[in-house]
Amino acid sequence: MALLFSDADVAAALDAPGAVAAMRDALLAAYQGRLIAPPRAAAPLGGGRMVLTAGHLTGEWYGFRSYDTFGHPEAEQVVVLHDGRTGAVRAVAVGEELGSRRTGGLGGAAVAALARPDAATLGVIGSGRQAWTQVWAAAAVRPLREVLVHSRSAARREAFAARVRAELGVPARAVGSAREAVTDAAIVVLATTSVTPVLDATDLAPGAHVNTVGFKQVDRHEFGPDLLDRADVLVTDSPAQAAAYAPPMLAAVAPYAGRLGDLGAVLAGAAPGRTGADQVTVFCSTGLAGTEVFLLDRLVRVGAPAV
Amino acid sequence: MALLFSDADVAAALDAPGAVAAMRDALLAAYQGRLIAPPRAAAPLGGGRMVLTAGHLTGEWYGFRSYDTFGHPEAEQVVVLHDGRTGAVRAVAVGEELGSRRTGGLGGAAVAALARPDAATLGVIGSGRQAWTQVWAAAAVRPLREVLVHSRSAARREAFAARVRAELGVPARAVGSAREAVTDAAIVVLATTSVTPVLDATDLAPGAHVNTVGFKQVDRHEFGPDLLDRADVLVTDSPAQAAAYAPPMLAAVAPYAGRLGDLGAVLAGAAPGRTGADQVTVFCSTGLAGTEVFLLDRLVRVGAPAV
Repeated sequence: MALLFSDADVAAALDAPGAVAAMRDALLAAYQGRLIAPPRAAAPLGGGRMVLTAGHLTGEWYGFRSYDTFGHPEAEQVVVLHDGRTGAVRAVAVGEELGSRRTGGLGGAAVAALARPDAATLGVIGSGRQAWTQVWAAAAVRPLREVLVHSRSAARREAFAARVRAELGVPARAVGSAREAVTDAAIVVLATTSVTPVLDATDLAPGAHVNTVGFKQVDRHEFGPDLLDRADVLVTDSPAQAAAYAPPMLAAVAPYAGRLGDLGAVLAGAAPGRTGADQVTVFCSTGLAGTEVFLLDRLVRVGAPAV
Repeated sequence: MALLFSDADVAAALDAPGAVAAMRDALLAAYQGRLIAPPRAAAPLGGGRMVLTAGHLTGEWYGFRSYDTFGHPEAEQVVVLHDGRTGAVRAVAVGEELGSRRTGGLGGAAVAALARPDAATLGVIGSGRQAWTQVWAAAAVRPLREVLVHSRSAARREAFAARVRAELGVPARAVGSAREAVTDAAIVVLATTSVTPVLDATDLAPGAHVNTVGFKQVDRHEFGPDLLDRADVLVTDSPAQAAAYAPPMLAAVAPYAGRLGDLGAVLAGAAPGRTGADQVTVFCSTGLAGTEVFLLDRLVRVGAPAV
């Protein structure tokens, strides 16, 4: 009988070090060709689409995540894990938590690989679910001593800072501008729903590492070309998916496309990462397909949901 | 929290009259344009594909069924039902039972609409899961007094006949040839995995209705053009899907394509069905997309799985 994981089950069973370790392994597997992650498939349903991103870890498992584009208030994703030998469904996760922690884990793997080893300050723009899991994962790979958060809503950024203090045990403050949040930050997270730039790249400190989670296409983007111009190292979790966006990702068109590297290659030691303390490194998160299934497989190995 | 239905839950909660009634409603909804059922979407995974068939009953629900083409021994399908207003996942079904009963229900709706009102004899070729649910559903819409079954394996066809007697309370016999199974049958079911014809249409009795569930494409088909030539009425559950097969369905190419009608239109009274006791009627089952979700919605309305 398949296991069913709710958001509460996922939250109870999957901590930040586990999520980051799993996503590091997934990035390596994708780079080595063991994780097959094709472009998404979609079915139009009138007013929205049902979308499937699938993955197959050769010899181990296959499965998919589904989501839709109706924009309903309580929309939930589904992740399904099949046993790679029998085809049986081992587990199903329903909700948002697995996907969010997956994206956080990918961001954490980028921070671990590219941020300065002594990075201890983090500035985050955005105060939603994605912003939270980025900070949650970054705190697992660097000993943070300060988090500054900015978002448009004063109430939400204050609540976010309080949550960082309470749940991560890291000093945190809400600030009134993006500039204030990032100026002294060794790690910067952009996790907004903005379609126009929220960051001026000249505000970044030398040596900063930036994770970008929000819109990053040519027609709508939470950061502008100035960030890409400033990047000494520019990577993504899936060069193939980055190249397949329509309209294209800013970092996947000239003059940036030739510079956009594979985070998996950096993790494998096959491509250089940061080579100087003052370099600016940028991770463009695209959400490597198959990684939600990868994470569900880890959850199942750890243990069943506590029903 | 989403409900999880296993095969046992589906079997316990969904009887044949319920499945047929639901599929009749689904066929009408599709004909009336309320059930949106786009072509399937697929993601290649190396050695197999992950396939999604989706559906949306306007204002009510949306969702999908997933299956794969790896050919693993215990491969399971997944059906997901989303609330059409909130987007939340209301239920997930894992296994084969819902899909099988869906296909049976479609066949039962065809028998109810097209078989002679006095049809009491059924001949089935094939003794697998699909053959079973066709007979299971037919018995719910016609008062059967005899079922004859033929398949290649004597042991399997004997077991099938025994199951018909035990579970449906209908006299049933295994017979040694397809001809023997269909010669006197008012209802004929083809539910094999054969890629070459298993039926000679001259063996059909006048007035017979035929449900075809197996292969029916130009390059592999369990029946030949002779069955289509013999059909006075020829329908499918999804003219759109029938036209989209690659390679095409036998019934969707000349000279048959122009005669292939919509079972939903017959149910709606918008197209003629049987107009004479001696006519031969043929239903080409394609598996209208969205109908597994339709059935899962019915299950949820009836009640939660008995955990």
